[in-house]
Amino acid sequence: MKIRYSQITITPGNPAKNFETCIAAARRAKAAGVNLLLLPEMSIPGYMIGDKWEENDFIDDCEYFSNELAKEADENFSLIFGTVAFLESITGKPRNGFDGRKAKVNTACIATKDGVQYPFKTLLPNYREFEEPRHFFNNLTASITPGEENEDRPMFNLYEICGTKFGVTICEDGWDDDYNVKPFRILKEVGAEMIVNISYSPFTAGKNQSRIRHFANHAKTLGKPVIYVNGLGLQNNGKTIFCFDGSSAAWNGQGELIAHSGMFTEEDVDFQYVDGSLTGIDAPQLVQTSEIDDIHNTLIYGIRNYMAQSGLRRVVIGASGGVDSTLAAALYTEAIGKENVLLVNMPSRFNSQTTIGIAEKLAHNLGCWYTSVPIQESAQLTHRQIDGLRPKNAVGEEIEINLSSFNMENVQARDRGSRVLAAIASAWGAVFTNNGNKTETTVGYATLYGDVAGFLAAIGDLWKHTVYDLCRHINFKAGKELVPVEVLTLKPSAELSDNQAVDKGLGDPLVYPYHDRLFEAWQQWWNHASLADILQHYLDGDLANYLNHGVETELTEDLIRSHYPDAKSFIADLERWYKLFKGMGIAKRIQAPPILAVTRRAYGFDYRESAIQPYFTRRYLEMKAKVLI
Amino acid sequence: MKIRYSQITITPGNPAKNFETCIAAARRAKAAGVNLLLLPEMSIPGYMIGDKWEENDFIDDCEYFSNELAKEADENFSLIFGTVAFLESITGKPRNGFDGRKAKVNTACIATKDGVQYPFKTLLPNYREFEEPRHFFNNLTASITPGEENEDRPMFNLYEICGTKFGVTICEDGWDDDYNVKPFRILKEVGAEMIVNISYSPFTAGKNQSRIRHFANHAKTLGKPVIYVNGLGLQNNGKTIFCFDGSSAAWNGQGELIAHSGMFTEEDVDFQYVDGSLTGIDAPQLVQTSEIDDIHNTLIYGIRNYMAQSGLRRVVIGASGGVDSTLAAALYTEAIGKENVLLVNMPSRFNSQTTIGIAEKLAHNLGCWYTSVPIQESAQLTHRQIDGLRPKNAVGEEIEINLSSFNMENVQARDRGSRVLAAIASAWGAVFTNNGNKTETTVGYATLYGDVAGFLAAIGDLWKHTVYDLCRHINFKAGKELVPVEVLTLKPSAELSDNQAVDKGLGDPLVYPYHDRLFEAWQQWWNHASLADILQHYLDGDLANYLNHGVETELTEDLIRSHYPDAKSFIADLERWYKLFKGMGIAKRIQAPPILAVTRRAYGFDYRESAIQPYFTRRYLEMKAKVLI
Repeated sequence: MKIRYSQITITPGNPAKNFETCIAAARRAKAAGVNLLLLPEMSIPGYMIGDKWEENDFIDDCEYFSNELAKEADENFSLIFGTVAFLESITGKPRNGFDGRKAKVNTACIATKDGVQYPFKTLLPNYREFEEPRHFFNNLTASITPGEENEDRPMFNLYEICGTKFGVTICEDGWDDDYNVKPFRILKEVGAEMIVNISYSPFTAGKNQSRIRHFANHAKTLGKPVIYVNGLGLQNNGKTIFCFDGSSAAWNGQGELIAHSGMFTEEDVDFQYVDGSLTGIDAPQLVQTSEIDDIHNTLIYGIRNYMAQSGLRRVVIGASGGVDSTLAAALYTEAIGKENVLLVNMPSRFNSQTTIGIAEKLAHNLGCWYTSVPIQESAQLTHRQIDGLRPKNAVGEEIEINLSSFNMENVQARDRGSRVLAAIASAWGAVFTNNGNKTETTVGYATLYGDVAGFLAAIGDLWKHTVYDLCRHINFKAGKELVPVEVLTLKPSAELSDNQAVDKGLGDPLVYPYHDRLFEAWQQWWNHASLADILQHYLDGDLANYLNHGVETELTEDLIRSHYPDAKSFIADLERWYKLFKGMGIAKRIQAPPILAVTRRAYGFDYRESAIQPYFTRRYLEMKAKVLI
Repeated sequence: MKIRYSQITITPGNPAKNFETCIAAARRAKAAGVNLLLLPEMSIPGYMIGDKWEENDFIDDCEYFSNELAKEADENFSLIFGTVAFLESITGKPRNGFDGRKAKVNTACIATKDGVQYPFKTLLPNYREFEEPRHFFNNLTASITPGEENEDRPMFNLYEICGTKFGVTICEDGWDDDYNVKPFRILKEVGAEMIVNISYSPFTAGKNQSRIRHFANHAKTLGKPVIYVNGLGLQNNGKTIFCFDGSSAAWNGQGELIAHSGMFTEEDVDFQYVDGSLTGIDAPQLVQTSEIDDIHNTLIYGIRNYMAQSGLRRVVIGASGGVDSTLAAALYTEAIGKENVLLVNMPSRFNSQTTIGIAEKLAHNLGCWYTSVPIQESAQLTHRQIDGLRPKNAVGEEIEINLSSFNMENVQARDRGSRVLAAIASAWGAVFTNNGNKTETTVGYATLYGDVAGFLAAIGDLWKHTVYDLCRHINFKAGKELVPVEVLTLKPSAELSDNQAVDKGLGDPLVYPYHDRLFEAWQQWWNHASLADILQHYLDGDLANYLNHGVETELTEDLIRSHYPDAKSFIADLERWYKLFKGMGIAKRIQAPPILAVTRRAYGFDYRESAIQPYFTRRYLEMKAKVLI
C-alpha cells in the first residue's frame, strides 16, 4: 500500500480555489500509483474566517466541493481530507448547534471505493486564537443525550482502507493532555493499526520541536505508525495573522521520525506500508533550524502572502534610522523586492545626522527607493493654527487652546504617519507599514494615528531583543551588511524632543533587557506572572533568574539593582508600566493594525483584552504596604 | 419570607469595588428585614474582562471577596449572588479546564446560616460577544466522565431557604431553547417551588420585550414564581462596548408580570412570599417605552460611563454640518455637559455655506464651544511637498509621486482627524470622537486615520435611518430644536471634492433607504441573507418586502427599480458594496475605534471577521450567469 501526504496551501474562505488545489493533488497521487492520499484539516473551507461559518450558502459550497473531491476515490485510490459539513448532511437528522443555527462539524472526509465517511473532530480547541466550539458541534457535549453515543462519537470507529484499520484524528485530537477524553488511547484500545492526524496548525516559535516529541510518544505508546499532515497558508482573525508552516511528519511504530517536511514548502511525500511497517520513499528528513531563522522565514512568508492576499504590491516605510524601521525595511525588501519598497525619512529639528545617515545607508544597502520629506514646516503650521485658538460658546465666553511641547511630540508623530506616509502611499499605489515592536506595543509607547498607524505590524510580535537578534541574523545570512551596523549599538530614541537627543545618549525610558522579560512574563507566559509574583522575586533577590525563565539573557540581578536599588524605585517603575500595559496600551491596541504572530501569545485575537481600569490585587497591595513602611 | 433583588452596578475586573457595592446592598437588605437578597450574575468579578480570567491572583481576590460577602448570612438573612470560583475551591478536588489551566466556574453563591453552596452555570453562551466556554468549566462536557454526574450537574439540585425549595439558574440557563439540556424543565421535575435567575445581560434593541414573554412562559409552565435579576454597568471586549441595562423583573405562578425595574436605574425591589405566592411590595411596574427611546437612553448611558471609566471628561467633535456629527454633538452634550464639548468646523474650499451654517447653529442650539480651523493651507502644503516628489535608489534611478484628486480627498479627511482634531483634543485634555454610522462602517465609506479615527464610535451601531430617527426623537423629547432641522433634509455628502457639492444635490453614492436594509440583511440578520438570496428576491420582484423584514420602512420595490431598472445595474451595485463590506470595510474596522453596541449584531467582538477575499458562491454565480445572458 502506497500512502502519500500532500502539504498543500489552503486559502481561507475559498472552497472553489481549495478544491482546485486538492483535485490537483489527488490527480498527481493517482498518476503516481498512490493508494491513499492524506490532505490537511479544513482543506476545502480554510480555517480562520471569522463568523463566516454562519453563512449557510458558504457551507453548501464547501459540501459541494467536498463531494466532488470525494468522487476521485476508485478501486485503487482512497483519500482522507479535512472539511466542514452540516451535521445533518452526515447523519440525515436535522440538528442545531447551541446557537440555534444548523449544527456544523469540523470533519475528516474519508472517501474510498465503498463510499464516504465523516469521522469528525472530538477535541475542539478554545484558547489563544482558537474558538472552535463557537462554530462547530461538540462531540462531547452532544453525548449527554442518551442513546446517541455511538453516532456522536466517531472517534471510537476505525476505518478500513486497503485492509488496514485506520484511526483518523484531527489536529487537537492528537493533543489530549488537558482533556478527559483521549482519542489516541481510545483508538489504541479498539485496535488501530495506524493513526493519521490531519491538522491545520500555525507556526509558533518552538512548537515544532514539541510536536515532534509529542507524536513520537504517541507512535511509541501505540506501537504503530503515525502520520501527521499539516497545511500551509496565511490566515487571520482580523487583528492577528497566522502563518501555517506545514512541517508535516511521520513516525514508525517504534516512535522514530521517518519523514519531516520543511516549513512553507509544498510537498508530496510518499510512504510504503507493508506488513504493518511504514517506510518513507525518498522522504524528506528533519533539518535542524534555529528559532531566529524560523522566525525570519515566517515573517517573510507572512509579509509576502498577506500582501498578495490583500492585492497589495508596494510599501512605503517611514525610515527613522532606528532599529525597528530598519528591520522592517530589510524584511519587506526581502519579501517583496527592492523595487516595491520606498523608504521615507521625515526629519524635524530634533532628528540627528546620525539617524538620518543610517536611513540613507539602509536604503543604499537594500537598493530600495529613498526620499526625504521634512515635517518641520507642517508642524509649525499646526502650531500656528492651533496654539492660542480661542473657541467661543453661544453667550460669547471663551476658552484657550495651548499646545505643550509634549503635545507637539505627538503632532510630529501623526504628521509623519497620517499626513506624509499615508499620502505618499496612496499616490504610489502602496500602503505604509507599522514598525512597532512588541515591547512598545505592550505599553503603548507610540502615538495613535502616528507610529501606531500602518497596514500591518510585521514585527509587532517581536520583543526588542528579538528585533536586534533578527537584524544580526539577516546580516549573517546575507553574508554582508544589509542592516547598517551602527543601528545595533545606537541608543533607542523617538527623537521627538530635545530630551530624546540620540547623540547625547538620551532616549527611550525602557530598560529593554529588563522590561522585555518583565512584559513577556505578564503577557506571554502560560501562567501569567502577577505583580505580586514579580515583587516577591525582586524582594527575594532572584527576579532575573525568574524572568529569564530558563533562558540565558542579558538580564542579571545586578542590572535590575542598578536601575532600581530599592523597593520604592522598583515599585514605581513596575506600576508605571503595568498601568500603561493595562490602560493606554489596550486603548492603542484596539486601533492598531494586524500583527503577524510568531510567539506563544500575540496581541489581538490571541490575547483578548477589555479596556478597563488596571486592578491591584490584595496580595500585591499587602506586600507593597509591608515593604514601603 | 421577604425577598429582595438589588439591581446594582457592576464594575468589570474590580472585585474590591464590587464587594463594596454588594456589601452595601446586603446591609440595606438586613436593615429592611429582608430574608433573602438576590444579586446579579458575576457581581464580584464583573463579566467582560477579556483573558484576565487566566490571572489566578485575580480569581483568588474574587474568591476572597465572595467569601467575605457570604459571611453576611445569618439566622434571618440569606443571599444569592453571582461570582467566579476555581472548581477546586468548591469540590475540594484539583481539576483543570481543557486549556490546561485551573478550571473556573461562573457560579451562584448561595449563602445561608448553614453555609455556602455553589450551583454553577449549566448553559454557557458561545455566540455573538459571548465566549464563556473559553474560560469556564463546562458542566455538560464534564459529564462524560463516569461517576461524576451529580457533582458536575448542580442544576439538578434544589436549595432550601426559609423552608422553600429554590431552583437557582444563571442567565443563559433560562434561555434553553437551543440546548439539549433544559434547566427549567429539570427544576420543575425535581420540585422547585420558585426559580431565580441571576443574570448579567446587556441591552439589545428589542430584547426586553422578548425576555418578558420568555420568562412569563417559564413561570406559567412551572406554575411557580420566577425572579429575574439583572445588573447595570458598562463592559467591553475591546472593540465592542455593551451597556447592561437592568430591567430586572418577577412573575407569579400564573406567569403574570408583578414587578419590572427600569433601565439603568439602581433599585432595591422587595417581595412578600407567603403560602407559595409571590407579591411585590411597592414594586416598580413595566413602563412601555419606544425602541428609539431605549436606544437613546443606552447611548447616553454608554457615552457617560465609557468616559467616566476611562477617566475622560471632555470631547472635541469635528462638526461638518452633516447629520452624523450633528447627532454625535447632541448626544455628547447631553451625556457629559455642554461645557465639556467643543465643536470644530474644518472647512476646505469644497465646504458649502449651508453645512458651515448648520454647524454654527448646532453649537448655538447646544450651547457648547465652537471654533473653526480651515484645512486649506495644510492640504496645499501637503500637495506642494509630495506631488512631484522624486525618490531615488542607490543607482540613481527615479520614480515620481503624483497626488490625484482622489488622493487629495483622503489627505483632507486625515488632516481633519489626525492633525487638527487630535492636536486640539490633546491640548484641551480631551479626546476626539468618531462620528461614523453603521452603514458607512459596513462598507468602509470613510478614511482611515481621518474620519475613521476617534476614541469611541458612539453611533457606530446605528444604521443611517436610525441616525435620522434619533435626531428627530432628540428634538421631540427636548421640545425644541437641538438638532438643526435643516440637517434632516440635507443630502448626505462628504464634501471632499467638486463632485460632492451639497448645494447642487450631489453627495454620497449610497441609497440609504435601500442600502441600510441590504447591509442589515447581510450583517445583522440571525440567518445572514446571501447574495443569492438577495438576487433571487430582486428577480422575483419582492426584494423590498424581503429586506423590510416585517417592518414598514421607506423602502419600496419601486424605489429599488428606479435605481436599478435591470439585473445588470442591480448586480453591479450589489457586488460593488459586497466587495467593500467583505474587503476594505474589514481592513478599516480592524483599526477603527470601539463601537457602542445597541443592535442584535455590532461590529467588532460581536461579529468576528477575517480580512480575506470576498467569495461568491456557486449558487450566486450560476444565478448571475443565467440572468446576464
